[in-house]
Amino acid sequence: MSLPDYGQAFPRWRAKAPAWEAYTHHAFVEGLRRGDLPRTHYLHYLRQDYIFLMHFARAWALAAAKADTLAEMQAASATLQALVHEEMPLHIQICAREGIDAASLAATVESPGNLAYTRYVLEAGYSGDFLDLMAALAPCVLGYGEVGARLAGSGGAYAEWIDTYAGDAYQTLCRDVGALIDSALLHRLGPDWHSLPRAEQLAQRFATATRLEVGFWQMGLDGP
Amino acid sequence: MSLPDYGQAFPRWRAKAPAWEAYTHHAFVEGLRRGDLPRTHYLHYLRQDYIFLMHFARAWALAAAKADTLAEMQAASATLQALVHEEMPLHIQICAREGIDAASLAATVESPGNLAYTRYVLEAGYSGDFLDLMAALAPCVLGYGEVGARLAGSGGAYAEWIDTYAGDAYQTLCRDVGALIDSALLHRLGPDWHSLPRAEQLAQRFATATRLEVGFWQMGLDGP
Amino acid sequence: MSLPDYGQAFPRWRAKAPAWEAYTHHAFVEGLRRGDLPRTHYLHYLRQDYIFLMHFARAWALAAAKADTLAEMQAASATLQALVHEEMPLHIQICAREGIDAASLAATVESPGNLAYTRYVLEAGYSGDFLDLMAALAPCVLGYGEVGARLAGSGGAYAEWIDTYAGDAYQTLCRDVGALIDSALLHRLGPDWHSLPRAEQLAQRFATATRLEVGFWQMGLDGP
Amino acid sequence: MSLPDYGQAFPRWRAKAPAWEAYTHHAFVEGLRRGDLPRTHYLHYLRQDYIFLMHFARAWALAAAKADTLAEMQAASATLQALVHEEMPLHIQICAREGIDAASLAATVESPGNLAYTRYVLEAGYSGDFLDLMAALAPCVLGYGEVGARLAGSGGAYAEWIDTYAGDAYQTLCRDVGALIDSALLHRLGPDWHSLPRAEQLAQRFATATRLEVGFWQMGLDGP
Repeated sequence: MSLPDYGQAFPRWRAKAPAWEAYTHHAFVEGLRRGDLPRTHYLHYLRQDYIFLMHFARAWALAAAKADTLAEMQAASATLQALVHEEMPLHIQICAREGIDAASLAATVESPGNLAYTRYVLEAGYSGDFLDLMAALAPCVLGYGEVGARLAGSGGAYAEWIDTYAGDAYQTLCRDVGALIDSALLHRLGPDWHSLPRAEQLAQRFATATRLEVGFWQMGLDGP
Repeated sequence: MSLPDYGQAFPRWRAKAPAWEAYTHHAFVEGLRRGDLPRTHYLHYLRQDYIFLMHFARAWALAAAKADTLAEMQAASATLQALVHEEMPLHIQICAREGIDAASLAATVESPGNLAYTRYVLEAGYSGDFLDLMAALAPCVLGYGEVGARLAGSGGAYAEWIDTYAGDAYQTLCRDVGALIDSALLHRLGPDWHSLPRAEQLAQRFATATRLEVGFWQMGLDGP
Repeated sequence: MSLPDYGQAFPRWRAKAPAWEAYTHHAFVEGLRRGDLPRTHYLHYLRQDYIFLMHFARAWALAAAKADTLAEMQAASATLQALVHEEMPLHIQICAREGIDAASLAATVESPGNLAYTRYVLEAGYSGDFLDLMAALAPCVLGYGEVGARLAGSGGAYAEWIDTYAGDAYQTLCRDVGALIDSALLHRLGPDWHSLPRAEQLAQRFATATRLEVGFWQMGLDGP
Repeated sequence: MSLPDYGQAFPRWRAKAPAWEAYTHHAFVEGLRRGDLPRTHYLHYLRQDYIFLMHFARAWALAAAKADTLAEMQAASATLQALVHEEMPLHIQICAREGIDAASLAATVESPGNLAYTRYVLEAGYSGDFLDLMAALAPCVLGYGEVGARLAGSGGAYAEWIDTYAGDAYQTLCRDVGALIDSALLHRLGPDWHSLPRAEQLAQRFATATRLEVGFWQMGLDGP
């Protein structure tokens, strides 16, 4: 199948991230696709993912703080708002259904793989600028979109997870984030941004974040 | 008249801010109350206020990035979202009605008083923590609430401005922000936070931001 | 006389800063040159300058935190080290000689002009990247060098101040900082950096910081 | 043997870090003590440690930016200066002696364990304040001191490494950093800081950083 189209920067960055295949075709993902990932491992992943979302939302908040235009601020703010007022409460509900209450969820001890990824993204944003933050956030947002698109219709025990990321709402978000990134690059670095040394630095950010995504799936696969 | 009740930290901080009276009873404010502030000066203020709101929204975004709990993130995110998706577009409309188009508004050259205040707040947040940011933001949010409550019903040429800040929506926001501050202090420093050296540092943040608010009104009064 | 040569970015940025002349030929500077600046005003400036140096040193520390190479870190660290272990203690000595003790100096209430400039620089660094920080720091470092070079040999009551900035040590620092900036631009944006939209944003940083330098001299001229 | 005395906060934090023993008595450390750690693993560790030092220096730079007093700035600046002008060049020399040239050293691909620890420290500093940064830095600075003191005189293949951390210079640094932390806590939170909720948050920072130190040794033990 063809890859989904999330704009112009994404395929350039993906092509320079050696771990992209290892990330998007990780054994954890295949377990979701076939539906045979052990439930305990999925729940371990879900709990860590809640902590992840907290820091991911903080990264989008930082993006709004580092934005240059009202349009960039509005895009980052809308994502933050959706994360803290919809996705995280939804996560709490899903976990509650699985017998994990909100207090226990919030008290989850963050795994090293989770710490590595989330702090890498946030620190990239603090030490660098809006573009560094976007390059570090992109593997998560767009990689989940690519995985979702590939797994669409797989059904099975994890159909709900798959449908979320394969669905129109999430795929639209991916196209919007891709467009936000393309426009942020153009606005700061001009149409030939990919020929600048800065482009290598941003590709490096994306590649490192991709490596850390592999570690996050692996943490899920290894289980609690 | 009695002062509005925005929680416990606010009156402590206000009492240690020598410029509080100069801020909340500034000649610019009195001009709004009496309705005799020259229109050109008001428009000058409005334009600067648009740039101010951009940085103010960035400060609330930073608050979400520096928050410690989901509740703090949700509160900061909701304020950011309201600023960039409601207040700023509304500001654009009001300015358009006055003959200032969006491009001209966004191109406003920031006055030194505007730079001083907004960058002080943002830097307090970056160099300090969530509490430093709250102490630096509070004079603006709560001071406008106090001014609004005092000027309620004054009518005149600036009745629309007055009604906005005197209105229920804004007064509720002030009480919410006051509660957010009180709970953030309690969560980090415990019930006797006001007896710690940290309390002096936060009061100092509030007092400096109050001084810079005086400069902001003065910039409006001085006119374009 | 010809302007001193501090590299390639500096003349480009200076040419786009409308307030450059107002800054480098400010009445305060002319008062230093002629030696007729009132002593009380000079002491007011000295006290504010001590607070300024504290934040200026913090900005160089932030530059080291945001650096990309060991060479950049070493340059920023050496500047920071010189500021906090030599310049600031020297400032304390000079003030002591003038009857201002260290405790009184540290307790100086920061003027709005001081706040505006220092927080603008720090916030540019936090919200942007290493280049934003360099562009915001440059008017101070290099402007003082240009003023020093122009006033060299003026003698008079402020000969000590003039000789400091006209002297070899400071002029060498200016050339080093100019080279650091040129190399940082090349390393990130390539040899045609000045044709990118990013170049406009950096020139804007420099121009705004220059405007705020005018305000700093004016604060000195207005006196205590 | 008795533990070295690095002040008052350190033993409190250590007592609340469940992984402290796993960190300071890690099999990698024991391999250094007995001298039977494979050389290839030690070189792998050395290369990663160079990248680590870069980020560690950036964290001390950030501490200088977030400091509150001249004394705090001077302490942080001196540490940064020593790291980038002495320790890192020394590291380059040691690696060169082992056949790893400077370019190859700088091009080392950062391991996930390295990323996790360094970015955790930096992000703690950016999102929190000076105290958060100190609590996250302390396990590295003081833990190496404790290990060095315990291994003193072990001799063997890694005697040079052991002597560095057991030596007077490093032990004095540990006492200075311990005193800096104690005084920073007192200056901000008062003498009963350990009874505040903030103390739990700081202990948590220390405990998490300690966990990530275990991962760093493990990365060394696992080898290239």
